[in-house]
Amino acid sequence: MRMYDIIKKKRDGHELSEEEIKFFVEGYTAGEIPDYQASALCMAIYFNGMTDRETSDLTFAVRDSGDKLDFSAIDGIRVDKHSTGGVGDKTSLVVAPIVASLGVKVAKMSGRGLGHTGGTIDKLEAIEGFQTTLSDEDFMKQVNDIGFAIVGQSRQFAPADKKLYALRDVTATVDSMPLIAASIMGKKLAADDDCIVLDVKTGSGSFMKTVEDSKALAQLMVNIGKRAGKKMVALITNMDRPLGFAIGNALEVIEAVETLNGHGPEDFTEVCLTLASHMLSLAGKGTAEECRKMAQRAIDDKSALNKLIETVKAQGGNEKLIQNPDLFKKAKFSHSVKSVKSGYISRADTEAYGLASLALGAGRNTIEDEIDYSAGIILKRKTGDFVNAGDEIAVLYSDKKQSFAEAEKILLNATTLHHKKPAEEPLVYCTVE
Amino acid sequence: MRMYDIIKKKRDGHELSEEEIKFFVEGYTAGEIPDYQASALCMAIYFNGMTDRETSDLTFAVRDSGDKLDFSAIDGIRVDKHSTGGVGDKTSLVVAPIVASLGVKVAKMSGRGLGHTGGTIDKLEAIEGFQTTLSDEDFMKQVNDIGFAIVGQSRQFAPADKKLYALRDVTATVDSMPLIAASIMGKKLAADDDCIVLDVKTGSGSFMKTVEDSKALAQLMVNIGKRAGKKMVALITNMDRPLGFAIGNALEVIEAVETLNGHGPEDFTEVCLTLASHMLSLAGKGTAEECRKMAQRAIDDKSALNKLIETVKAQGGNEKLIQNPDLFKKAKFSHSVKSVKSGYISRADTEAYGLASLALGAGRNTIEDEIDYSAGIILKRKTGDFVNAGDEIAVLYSDKKQSFAEAEKILLNATTLHHKKPAEEPLVYCTVE
Repeated sequence: MRMYDIIKKKRDGHELSEEEIKFFVEGYTAGEIPDYQASALCMAIYFNGMTDRETSDLTFAVRDSGDKLDFSAIDGIRVDKHSTGGVGDKTSLVVAPIVASLGVKVAKMSGRGLGHTGGTIDKLEAIEGFQTTLSDEDFMKQVNDIGFAIVGQSRQFAPADKKLYALRDVTATVDSMPLIAASIMGKKLAADDDCIVLDVKTGSGSFMKTVEDSKALAQLMVNIGKRAGKKMVALITNMDRPLGFAIGNALEVIEAVETLNGHGPEDFTEVCLTLASHMLSLAGKGTAEECRKMAQRAIDDKSALNKLIETVKAQGGNEKLIQNPDLFKKAKFSHSVKSVKSGYISRADTEAYGLASLALGAGRNTIEDEIDYSAGIILKRKTGDFVNAGDEIAVLYSDKKQSFAEAEKILLNATTLHHKKPAEEPLVYCTVE
Repeated sequence: MRMYDIIKKKRDGHELSEEEIKFFVEGYTAGEIPDYQASALCMAIYFNGMTDRETSDLTFAVRDSGDKLDFSAIDGIRVDKHSTGGVGDKTSLVVAPIVASLGVKVAKMSGRGLGHTGGTIDKLEAIEGFQTTLSDEDFMKQVNDIGFAIVGQSRQFAPADKKLYALRDVTATVDSMPLIAASIMGKKLAADDDCIVLDVKTGSGSFMKTVEDSKALAQLMVNIGKRAGKKMVALITNMDRPLGFAIGNALEVIEAVETLNGHGPEDFTEVCLTLASHMLSLAGKGTAEECRKMAQRAIDDKSALNKLIETVKAQGGNEKLIQNPDLFKKAKFSHSVKSVKSGYISRADTEAYGLASLALGAGRNTIEDEIDYSAGIILKRKTGDFVNAGDEIAVLYSDKKQSFAEAEKILLNATTLHHKKPAEEPLVYCTVE
């Protein structure tokens, strides 16, 4: 088998065999196939696409390129939720405690943030003492005991994806649906869950800019998961506005705790309840409608909040911060951002909001950067709201006063005002099964 | 300027600017742009093509990547002929002497053969003593004195093309019309001719398999040459059958000499007269029709043959071999290939004929291989001829007796017999100006 022939076959619009796809992924991961052939193949895939079968084989080859988890020591059904990455997305901190409080196991591996998107592990590390590394035994014991544990990715999951993504990133081959699906699902399937709920973000700051494309990507990933024997469902959610009001690590933990206390932002609460109900339903707890009522009850009776407190305590975190979020360390400086014009906010460039938060110190430009956990943004007005010139639209927080000018500029440029109220957009567009 | 943006722009179907194309070619030649980005761009060009303007800019950037010749010391109009590469193509050895004998200058740089195609320089080196390296002064003096000189490519012409072609060859991006045109013309324009006649081969063993594609490639190259200020014409010639009967270095020189003596193969003589008449006409010697008569006269009165003898002598070659080709060293062994079936030869896979000749020792698999100058094939029957089972269709020549079995197998497989006489195909399909 020769890599040249594989490139040519895809270039000419033919379907690659499972053997050819394995040959490519294994050879590329092992360093036997050079970058210049891999990038040529990725560009050919960009133009000619892949069938569902090819995409599944690519996903499985990516999954099989590294470590895989074995959760068989965990009793009961294991469910996970995976988001394609967003700004101000702290849903895991709410949905996992809800689901675990209702008897479904959540054994979660999460990532760190890079660029404009945050990572759940970074958010948790804003909680003093919280350990994001556990031994396999301790991790599974905690899931069995409490129902929920969450750690960072210490293993070498899907190294093929890491290498391929770095290459795609510099050769303009990221925006290819089969390559995106194989990248996300290749990593996800290295874990050992029974059910997976995908939260596919659509709009600004996400891979897919249109609802149609997001639905196609979601369907592709659902099909791949099913081929791997998982129960799957995907939700298409709106990323044209940040979720909730908080962007930044400690600020997002605080907003998650408020939500578990029953007074979170309306949009964010709605997305969390929808995701939790699908996770519960997939795990066999009832219809989505029944499960939604259970999830609402877990918030109302504080059982979900208590589950988060229990988890934080078990992983060494200071649970008093969750019991009383006022105790979180505050940023040294704050700065009020005021609108210079009047009008309805017709569009918010979510990706730019993420970049503004990054400028304040809440994220990383490179994986070596240190995070300022108290830095970030609290939005005061969101898409659809009317603002008068001089009204406060956001408050910025940072230990670096000099970062306010840049962040304010980015934020104001990212907020479009219009004299007409924009059409209401759904928070959750649809479900893909 | 970033290479990423250039790849993305072409991927998205936009036209690259002259600056972007220069940035790519210069950066890639200098080793500042990595292979993996260059191959991604080539694949995007494969799918989205290039405008004539982009292709010209690419060609000029390739031309400008290395040495360029200055022929200003040569008096009179300089004309060159360039073939896109064929099997048994010894036209240069006939047309250059014809044209030079009629007062038009031919200052020729030629290449060596690799794989299934032969190279004019290798053919000339079959002539004992012939020097294919001359100083610039000696080269131009010989052109001024005799009208014709021919040397190998000792300079670093178009290194960008050398590097890019090697990359395209392993990433399935050779078959792209703008990339082929820029590769051929980038090298050709590094020489300093006034007029160029392109011989664009079509069919088996050539870049373009159909007449339509060949016409499009020819038109593209003619347009590029005109933008560079050259007088241009292209002929589309048939490569679905080898030219003449001889394949192999000394065998082809002998056939060229026979042609200059007026008794060459009909097809080969016809192509030579057509090419020579266009070269003369471009140089201002009259209409193509008038020039054809002049070319025929140069054969009839032996002035073209004498010009070849004069050139061989000037470059240190043994001119007695040209005066009496029987003196050429013969191969140690010969082998008669007989047809196993009866029928009309309906198709000859010219590329495979070239590979059979290579197997006999007449060519190179790698640039280090030594050539057996007396090895090769004399065809006894060609496309359209009727053969009975047992009739001789070719004679193989080699110093390695053991190579006959493989060469015979390739040759027989490459020759398709059919009970119906195939339709006559033109030798020269058309002229593109």
